[in-house]
Amino acid sequence: MSQTALMIIDVQKGLDDPSWGRRNNPGAESNIARLLAAWRQRRQPVIHIRHCSVAPNSPLRPELPGNAFKAEAQPLPGEKQFSKSVNSAFIGTGLAQYLEAQGISNLVMVGLTTDHCVSTSARMAANLGFVVTLIADATATFEREGPDGVLYSAEDIHNISLASLSGEFCKVRSTEAVLSELA
Amino acid sequence: MSQTALMIIDVQKGLDDPSWGRRNNPGAESNIARLLAAWRQRRQPVIHIRHCSVAPNSPLRPELPGNAFKAEAQPLPGEKQFSKSVNSAFIGTGLAQYLEAQGISNLVMVGLTTDHCVSTSARMAANLGFVVTLIADATATFEREGPDGVLYSAEDIHNISLASLSGEFCKVRSTEAVLSELA
Repeated sequence: MSQTALMIIDVQKGLDDPSWGRRNNPGAESNIARLLAAWRQRRQPVIHIRHCSVAPNSPLRPELPGNAFKAEAQPLPGEKQFSKSVNSAFIGTGLAQYLEAQGISNLVMVGLTTDHCVSTSARMAANLGFVVTLIADATATFEREGPDGVLYSAEDIHNISLASLSGEFCKVRSTEAVLSELA
Repeated sequence: MSQTALMIIDVQKGLDDPSWGRRNNPGAESNIARLLAAWRQRRQPVIHIRHCSVAPNSPLRPELPGNAFKAEAQPLPGEKQFSKSVNSAFIGTGLAQYLEAQGISNLVMVGLTTDHCVSTSARMAANLGFVVTLIADATATFEREGPDGVLYSAEDIHNISLASLSGEFCKVRSTEAVLSELA
């Protein structure tokens, strides 16, 4: 039977830097910690994705303290880690080949940020043939100014990103729904 | 010197089907036609992407009349075409290899829909190292219901999709700005 991996994307200290602007969903990390505990208890695969930015001013550059995982998403020895330098966890990483070799065709995705690395990784996973579930309250994003000069709130970007992904690329569910089903 | 290709994504008759719901930006096709005429006049490369859906009820299935390109985006003999069955124009198509072989590193993207196939293709193009310009008024999308039960308007989805893409994956420009620069 196919395994379901919990894929945790870019839950790194550098995303607490105030330069990113206002964020939504401050509870995302505690939901991620709950999901991670449940996956470990059931000995299901956990995959940690770490962003190693090549942008000159990013707090996620590999040599900076912001590159470290947050406490809620700290890998245990033996859990698989992949490092990436672009948004998609599938580019330059060998992740798709690893999942195929392990017989993992189902992915539960959580992490940061909803509309950048999570959305890009979910889109590409689905287009490569993986079955993706995205946990709405275990992701979050930041406010952004559009090319139209409007400042869009993190909440609006988050909700509309999920509307674009839902059904087309993934199922969108809540932490509670997934944990109840496991229990 | 590197060439700049105009990449036209999924401008197909089946996207006029009323089942998709309300759309924004009814002028997208006429802007695409203007850009296409300008690219042809300058003998710059044009790449047509056609969606061949494998979904049972999609009007974009290859055997249906909706699979045909709209008049504004009809390829000329000799213009390159790629067919895809997922959102990303780069999966299962050989498109990246073709662009590299042709020395094309700059892409100007237009087409349908902003948040599904255009966004996914722009994200993957950028993550593969191409320089992407997305033409805001030569793309459009449809209203969608989110997993939260809210019906988001096509205009809001379009604008927020561009806010998520802009700067991170591409430059967002207008048809007029690009045509003025070419002139």
